[in-house]
Amino acid sequence: MKAGRVVEMAAAVRAGDRRALARAITLIESSRHDHRVAAEALLGELLAATGASIRIGISGAPGVGKSTFIEAFGLHVLERGHRIAVLAVDPSSKVSGGSILGDKTRMQELARHPRAFIRPSPAGETLGGVARRTREAMLVCEAAGFDVILVETVGVGQSETAVAEMTDLFVLLLQPGGGDELQGMKRGIVELAEVILVNKADGELAEAAVRAAADYQSAVRMLRPASRDWTVPVRTCSAVTGDGIAEVWRIVERYRATMQASGAFEARRAAQARAWMWSEVEESLVAALRRHPRVGRRVVALEKKVAAGKIVPSMAAQELVEAFLGDTSPRAARSS
Amino acid sequence: MKAGRVVEMAAAVRAGDRRALARAITLIESSRHDHRVAAEALLGELLAATGASIRIGISGAPGVGKSTFIEAFGLHVLERGHRIAVLAVDPSSKVSGGSILGDKTRMQELARHPRAFIRPSPAGETLGGVARRTREAMLVCEAAGFDVILVETVGVGQSETAVAEMTDLFVLLLQPGGGDELQGMKRGIVELAEVILVNKADGELAEAAVRAAADYQSAVRMLRPASRDWTVPVRTCSAVTGDGIAEVWRIVERYRATMQASGAFEARRAAQARAWMWSEVEESLVAALRRHPRVGRRVVALEKKVAAGKIVPSMAAQELVEAFLGDTSPRAARSS
Repeated sequence: MKAGRVVEMAAAVRAGDRRALARAITLIESSRHDHRVAAEALLGELLAATGASIRIGISGAPGVGKSTFIEAFGLHVLERGHRIAVLAVDPSSKVSGGSILGDKTRMQELARHPRAFIRPSPAGETLGGVARRTREAMLVCEAAGFDVILVETVGVGQSETAVAEMTDLFVLLLQPGGGDELQGMKRGIVELAEVILVNKADGELAEAAVRAAADYQSAVRMLRPASRDWTVPVRTCSAVTGDGIAEVWRIVERYRATMQASGAFEARRAAQARAWMWSEVEESLVAALRRHPRVGRRVVALEKKVAAGKIVPSMAAQELVEAFLGDTSPRAARSS
Repeated sequence: MKAGRVVEMAAAVRAGDRRALARAITLIESSRHDHRVAAEALLGELLAATGASIRIGISGAPGVGKSTFIEAFGLHVLERGHRIAVLAVDPSSKVSGGSILGDKTRMQELARHPRAFIRPSPAGETLGGVARRTREAMLVCEAAGFDVILVETVGVGQSETAVAEMTDLFVLLLQPGGGDELQGMKRGIVELAEVILVNKADGELAEAAVRAAADYQSAVRMLRPASRDWTVPVRTCSAVTGDGIAEVWRIVERYRATMQASGAFEARRAAQARAWMWSEVEESLVAALRRHPRVGRRVVALEKKVAAGKIVPSMAAQELVEAFLGDTSPRAARSS
């Protein structure tokens, strides 16, 4: 792609051209060498127009009602005059062919709305790859004028950490049922959350949801007392009746105002940007090592020996790094 | 150090010579090039004799009574015929000059016991450095015949994750007081724990400790339901009266038996060894990049630009990696 076309595409994205936006994200998701070069040039062009959104991560186990919640929440946010983009981080879509957001029929109204944009998780990627693409897609959406970005993920695996590390606040969606719904969830997810919502607070489950929220509130108070900046609220809501949805948006606005006032908002973003850079540096270097003809061949054998306790992991690492970097003072590099 | 001396030192360590053990760990803690070479040769010699201990991580906020607990627990374990080594991971000791375990007077009886070995955290190191040295020291202690290894850390910062990643089970020490004692603790620590203990269950605090344990138990049940392998027990204990200390050791033995029976014990160790190798590979490569004359100079400036949102983090990473690896297909290395 020529430099001129990148500038053109950037201008179209910033003007709010939806086709250009979709094409830009497709470009970002491509791993073809020339596409990567163009994608980075594009991001460079757009950078000055990014950053003005609130980035909200959202997670919950399958069955908790994430899609209906996002639809209800998204429509409420649209009513208040905002523009919302919904992205997804789901490395499992590699296998399942897009298990979340893939089926837009689950969010019909939102998907059709002119001020909403929904994009499923890129397929065929590692978590690192999906996270990188999603971070970049987030920037493109911001440049296109979306001021609320929702990043959805499923309640299993390490994708929650990745999403928490790219968003301003992390919302955990639960359902009534006395803790059982957390069964399939990985350790640490509850402690990532800045906001906890008990969904399905309607009909027969209404009372159970209120009880569950009270239980979670005291559990959270016990295990995660208020920080100076923020006490984690636990609320009930119903994506079906709409109860509590407006309150969620009020909490998001209060969170942003509080964190911006204390400086924690900008500090978190700066730390995220630095961490993103370093994780890309690490990933790139490790990928280059794995791809190196002499070195890549040794990786599998050494990993097996390490797992079986037949070689000290630091020695195996040393061997790989020395073989990769050659004799250009790899030992000096290690003795930090 | 000559190869012959390494073999000699390894033999002395395996024979239980305490001076040789202390010297071996000092060797491991050194960052001098020739010492690193000797340390790795030493670990290679000792490897076959490692792995037979139970590795217990332990953490708790300052003031929770960690030292007195370790003394009481250690003495109980010694009474049962075991040999115990106590190591520490505390990157803050860089500043404070050894804030934990530095003062052996806090564990007088244990420190004097012929079947116990106490080693403070190596000073002047990053967390990565401390973690690496501690992992290696753990192996040396195992080779020296210690079958219970306790790795202590403070209840702040990321050292808990590092300790959980190098041990078989992680014990969190709390005190009575309605959640306030967690104030200073980092998010996610509770969810790392395989065992939770409410210490100071004696005198005036006895009743409060029982109540706190019940509260924590229900909070943990709510937020972290039982896995197939293990339900996190919450118990009270008193390092002063000795109440509950024997029960802690019974829990440790039950944990080991359960996890070994299911295969989870060995699987965790194999995963830890692999992760250790890769984290060393990453650290070594990043350290080599930072140390590179052409590249190291750019790091600070790029980090600032990234944090200020003036450059896309992935582009900054790309720039660093390309400069470091030269033109040997760095882009190809990135497009994974």
